[in-house]
Amino acid sequence: MIVSDRQTLAEDVRAGKRRALAKAITLVESTRADHREQARALVEALLPDTGKALRVGLSGVPGVGKSTFVEALGLYLIEQGHRVAVLAVDPSSSVHGGSILGDKTRMELLSRRTEAFIRPSPSSGALGGVAHRTREAMLVCEAAGFDVVLVETVGVGQSEIAVAGMTDIFCLLQLPNAGDDLQGMKKGIVEIADLVAINKADIDKAATHRAQAQMQGAISMVRHAHPDWTPPVIPVSALKAEGIDVFWNTVLKFRETMVANGAFAARRRRQAGAWMWELIDHDLRARFRANVRVAEELPGLQAEVEQGQVTPAAAAARLLGHLDNI
Amino acid sequence: MIVSDRQTLAEDVRAGKRRALAKAITLVESTRADHREQARALVEALLPDTGKALRVGLSGVPGVGKSTFVEALGLYLIEQGHRVAVLAVDPSSSVHGGSILGDKTRMELLSRRTEAFIRPSPSSGALGGVAHRTREAMLVCEAAGFDVVLVETVGVGQSEIAVAGMTDIFCLLQLPNAGDDLQGMKKGIVEIADLVAINKADIDKAATHRAQAQMQGAISMVRHAHPDWTPPVIPVSALKAEGIDVFWNTVLKFRETMVANGAFAARRRRQAGAWMWELIDHDLRARFRANVRVAEELPGLQAEVEQGQVTPAAAAARLLGHLDNI
Repeated sequence: MIVSDRQTLAEDVRAGKRRALAKAITLVESTRADHREQARALVEALLPDTGKALRVGLSGVPGVGKSTFVEALGLYLIEQGHRVAVLAVDPSSSVHGGSILGDKTRMELLSRRTEAFIRPSPSSGALGGVAHRTREAMLVCEAAGFDVVLVETVGVGQSEIAVAGMTDIFCLLQLPNAGDDLQGMKKGIVEIADLVAINKADIDKAATHRAQAQMQGAISMVRHAHPDWTPPVIPVSALKAEGIDVFWNTVLKFRETMVANGAFAARRRRQAGAWMWELIDHDLRARFRANVRVAEELPGLQAEVEQGQVTPAAAAARLLGHLDNI
Repeated sequence: MIVSDRQTLAEDVRAGKRRALAKAITLVESTRADHREQARALVEALLPDTGKALRVGLSGVPGVGKSTFVEALGLYLIEQGHRVAVLAVDPSSSVHGGSILGDKTRMELLSRRTEAFIRPSPSSGALGGVAHRTREAMLVCEAAGFDVVLVETVGVGQSEIAVAGMTDIFCLLQLPNAGDDLQGMKKGIVEIADLVAINKADIDKAATHRAQAQMQGAISMVRHAHPDWTPPVIPVSALKAEGIDVFWNTVLKFRETMVANGAFAARRRRQAGAWMWELIDHDLRARFRANVRVAEELPGLQAEVEQGQVTPAAAAARLLGHLDNI
């Protein structure tokens, strides 16, 4: 892509042209080196128009009704005059080649609206790469005028941490039949949730109430990142579009509280800085691994370290000794 | 130190000579470059004699009675025929220059025993460096024949993660007056605890019972790393030396379970590999920061990234562009 094309693309994205938006996101999702370079320049050009959306992270295990919830929330937000982009970070897509490609068909009503833009997870790459591309896609959507960006993920692996690390508020979707382990809730997830919604609350009110109390108890056990905020647990029914307004008003209340105490801006600053360091660390490690002698010795040395035959310090020193300078 | 001196030191450590042990640990704790090099060689020489101890991590906030607990446990273990080394990772020591230097005087009975060796936290450096030196000190103690190594930390910052990352079992010490937030328990700590002890259980049995139930409830909310293990909550009184035997038998039960399912060996392999990569990443970043042009541009660029004026990708690319090769 030559520079003038890129300028046109940036202009068309800013004008909210749908085809340009899709093209731009395809560009930021590409793993080709020349595309990566173009994507970086494009996002750089769009940067002044980014940052104005409310970035909402959403996680829930398969079966929790996430697509239905996102559709209900999206339609509600459009009613309120918003433009909504839905992005995804799906760690399993790196294995399955895009396991939630079906999102658009599952969110049939939402995907037909011009005020909405739904994009499944980039279909290949390690989580770090997928997360990076989703972050860039988020900026593109903001430049295109979407003022709410929902970033969803399935409750597997490290993807929640990645999503919480790129959004202003991280919401957890749960089911009423919590059981002992809250649907096998993963390590540290309670701690990073700013808000919990219990979906399918219409089916069994007593179970919902129990799950709500149990969840609220779990939340009270751990200190939230902000002393001003105890994450609320909100019953919703995405299918019946019940409780969506309460959910959204709580999201807004969170934003209001965090803007007032300065945590909102601080979180964004921290995220941007951390993102830069992630990219630097990733590149440094790639350069390290690309060193011919490191590449030769690393597998054997790592195995010896793991077997306790070489100390980690000695192995690190030997490998690093192969680097000339940096 | 010349090579023959180092060989003598290694031999004396292996022979369990106390002065050699203290000298060796002073060496691994030193931040001087020539000492670091000697320490690496010493630990490498001792490596075949390491790995045989049970490595027990222990965390608890100030006031929980950690020193009293460690003393009671240490004396109990000596009675059982063990030799016990007590090390510490204290993140605050990097600020205060060794805030738990008083440990030895607080553990008066234990410190007088020849079967025990107590070493406070290295007194300076960032947590990563302190943790690294404690890991090396642990190996030195193992080579000196200590078959139980207790690594303690205060419940602040990232130090628990560091201690859990260098031990076979991570234990959390709590008080009965749990209150709503379990003494302000930090993010993710419930998740990494393999075992919880409620100290001062003799003072108020009803409160202890409530805290036990509350803690067990919190534990049941999160999935432990091993499906074979639900972390037990054990009431103890360190002051009266009550429950120490139950505590230790539970530690042994954990080891037995994890050895049987292979998780014990896997945890050590993972820890060794992660340690090597930590050292590599740390060095790569240090080389990066040492680049003259990077050092010049980094502060300004990082600020621009945090203000949203430059994208993280563009900043990372510009900084990395200053490196010739690696």
